[in-house]
Amino acid sequence: MRLVIIGGSDAGISAGIRAFELDPYMDISVLLADAYPNYSICGLPFFLSGETPDWRMLAHRTDFPGIKLFPDHTATVIDTRSNCVVAANAQGEKHSFQYDRLVIATGARPVTSAIQGTELHGVFPLHTMDDSFSMDKYLREREPGSVVIVGAGYIGLEMADALTHRGLEVTLASRSETVLETLDPSLAILVEQELRDRHVSLYKGVKVDRVCQSGNGLRVMGTRGFDATADMVLIAVGVQPDSRLGVESGLATGIKGAIRVNLRMETTLPDIYAAGDCVETWHRLLQRNAYLPLGTTSHKQGRIAGENAAGGSAKFQGSLGTQVVKVFDLVIARTGLRESEALASGFEPLTVESTWNDHKAYYPKARKLHIRVTGDRTSGRLLGAQIVGQYGSEISKRIDVVAVALHHEMSVEQLSDLDLSYTPPLSSPWDPIQMAAQSWGQARKAATANFSVT
Amino acid sequence: MRLVIIGGSDAGISAGIRAFELDPYMDISVLLADAYPNYSICGLPFFLSGETPDWRMLAHRTDFPGIKLFPDHTATVIDTRSNCVVAANAQGEKHSFQYDRLVIATGARPVTSAIQGTELHGVFPLHTMDDSFSMDKYLREREPGSVVIVGAGYIGLEMADALTHRGLEVTLASRSETVLETLDPSLAILVEQELRDRHVSLYKGVKVDRVCQSGNGLRVMGTRGFDATADMVLIAVGVQPDSRLGVESGLATGIKGAIRVNLRMETTLPDIYAAGDCVETWHRLLQRNAYLPLGTTSHKQGRIAGENAAGGSAKFQGSLGTQVVKVFDLVIARTGLRESEALASGFEPLTVESTWNDHKAYYPKARKLHIRVTGDRTSGRLLGAQIVGQYGSEISKRIDVVAVALHHEMSVEQLSDLDLSYTPPLSSPWDPIQMAAQSWGQARKAATANFSVT
Repeated sequence: MRLVIIGGSDAGISAGIRAFELDPYMDISVLLADAYPNYSICGLPFFLSGETPDWRMLAHRTDFPGIKLFPDHTATVIDTRSNCVVAANAQGEKHSFQYDRLVIATGARPVTSAIQGTELHGVFPLHTMDDSFSMDKYLREREPGSVVIVGAGYIGLEMADALTHRGLEVTLASRSETVLETLDPSLAILVEQELRDRHVSLYKGVKVDRVCQSGNGLRVMGTRGFDATADMVLIAVGVQPDSRLGVESGLATGIKGAIRVNLRMETTLPDIYAAGDCVETWHRLLQRNAYLPLGTTSHKQGRIAGENAAGGSAKFQGSLGTQVVKVFDLVIARTGLRESEALASGFEPLTVESTWNDHKAYYPKARKLHIRVTGDRTSGRLLGAQIVGQYGSEISKRIDVVAVALHHEMSVEQLSDLDLSYTPPLSSPWDPIQMAAQSWGQARKAATANFSVT
Repeated sequence: MRLVIIGGSDAGISAGIRAFELDPYMDISVLLADAYPNYSICGLPFFLSGETPDWRMLAHRTDFPGIKLFPDHTATVIDTRSNCVVAANAQGEKHSFQYDRLVIATGARPVTSAIQGTELHGVFPLHTMDDSFSMDKYLREREPGSVVIVGAGYIGLEMADALTHRGLEVTLASRSETVLETLDPSLAILVEQELRDRHVSLYKGVKVDRVCQSGNGLRVMGTRGFDATADMVLIAVGVQPDSRLGVESGLATGIKGAIRVNLRMETTLPDIYAAGDCVETWHRLLQRNAYLPLGTTSHKQGRIAGENAAGGSAKFQGSLGTQVVKVFDLVIARTGLRESEALASGFEPLTVESTWNDHKAYYPKARKLHIRVTGDRTSGRLLGAQIVGQYGSEISKRIDVVAVALHHEMSVEQLSDLDLSYTPPLSSPWDPIQMAAQSWGQARKAATANFSVT
């Protein structure tokens, strides 16, 4: 049995590893467009900040038992009639790879922005290892003193942190009215305060439309009179599925052009699986597909594609959109739906924000957690949560407690039934998540005329 | 409606607060044996270490809306025919409290030890606020340079940390062959190493039987030739339910003499509820009662007793024995059953230990997590987990992720379906808990001849 995998990042390598685990006799080939199998793209900001001194450390793994890797092999054609993938190597030579099963894991690519001048030297995207090498070289050789970052999503904020750490003056242009559009504004304000405290110049509601050379620097212009000059520009305005090869092969696509798959990660053509940032993702709460390009999801989907390609029948259990990011000393986490998303999906959401110490205040260094809990006011069902607080406050795993509760369709009230751990240096007898849930219950009771205790 | 609550610690106060939330017209009285309503007994080690400078900070709360507190009122009799509690105040005067509903929350007391000489000056238990005041006074006035701690459970270890922090030389006598009997030996060894690194003298398998005066010091003797002299002795050999009042009132008792209750926290007599360290606790995994005196459980049970006393019908959803303790820079957490407990309860456990970084190694300060996962080798069901690692590695909330999974009877394999959060400074694309679960799956496959992928 020949398994060919197009793409050597999280989803592709996970598929190969899982297939080999289950069937050590399978002939597994992974075609990589670059030379960096299973590198942690999420780690690029830390390489660029200098915190990760050697880019080689970014490899999630360095040995790939049972997998034949073909670096610098860009797949150009999938011939679904003859079950053959054609790939071009660095020299432009074409090779054919016969498959019995195929996994497409071509990932995402930066959205095509309408910004003029992005081809100028000193203007960078940040999506691939090569992007980061180019930027690192520029940083070392040109020693820029300042940067304009276009985009205030996860990458934009992590890079604001990273380049501040590297000594640059950072200007951040956010298209939205608050940073991190995936977060409710009342929490985004806390992130903005942290940025200001770290001397990041923040401009909101700005649509950048042009970069041009200006003396020795780069001039960046946009709406609301945005006009900034810096030694370097980073464009981080989001990604889109790289489904071009799949589309050309006749695969059906859906949201944002992502490849359509079922829960077994099967595409609309036989023996072809797809996984990771190039596919639609089943949202467990919404009970419909969404586009959620996340490393965690890519690993899971790749593993399932690999298992099924090896004859298994695993099913992807869905995403909840669980995410966390560290920006300077703040940690920002979310899972499930927030108010606006829940409303758009037919729920009757109630969102309650409350603030708690991460552990008992009598033990040193207690710090505030800002928690927003969203639940359905009619059914009482838990829909999501967002937490903002300090690095070290176990925020990431606190949001995970909520994620597991969401996985099991718990009500907000039932969070208080959970037997969570407590010691004064780390929590309180009711975990902050449970106290936030109890605040939600009280607010719901206050808001609901005919509420009765059940 | 008159609600009388005997006991003003976690369970009693939680009951009062919840009853008032649901029925603000209820007449709620809480009889406290001491003067410290809802103080954090779990915080005593930090008061004694000096990290919590003022004991008043240990109050979980300082206002008790809707609750009449009667401090220094020791309940002496419950007359179940006339629905009346008699309590004696500090002056020995007796007062009667009529009730329609009664909640007994008399907590636990130290086990009666067979150790001779515990009445000597300088020998302390640590269970009440007054115990801690006596010890603190002794520490301040006598400035002891050394202490022998008898017992290597949670309190013994926390106090070894606390008194080292306060500058004392600590000798720890453990009755069991490894410290922390609630932990598997391979992990307990890590705790023992931490104790040695902090210059705690550790003696294991020692049954202390006698304390006597020796010159200016106290001499502590036990089996295996244990013979140590110190300026102070702490006896921390465990607790038992303080159910004496309940027993005298005719309530049925069970394990270790704890008051028998159902999931509504009803005792065997009408209109009398009980909660907290004086009652049996439903174990959600074992599906039978156990004795698990924990602050988290006391809060939950008290809340349920209060809700039901106010006319509700809440049910306690059971304990999983989730616990965490910090000892110097180590954090030790567990939930569910470990191998020996699972075996004793009719499961066919398989336990697999694995070691993982708490976050991606390329981001600074990654530290090892030692994880033991126990599951049923036949059904694949998750039974429990133990984690030992460094303070700051989100161990407490990682064990909580497992606790929520246990709550929902997940299989070990299903842990990999959970959509957990990831950013390189805080985790990896598969959380260590998920990687540990995958290691368990591989070990099970290797151990099971007829294993087939499902």
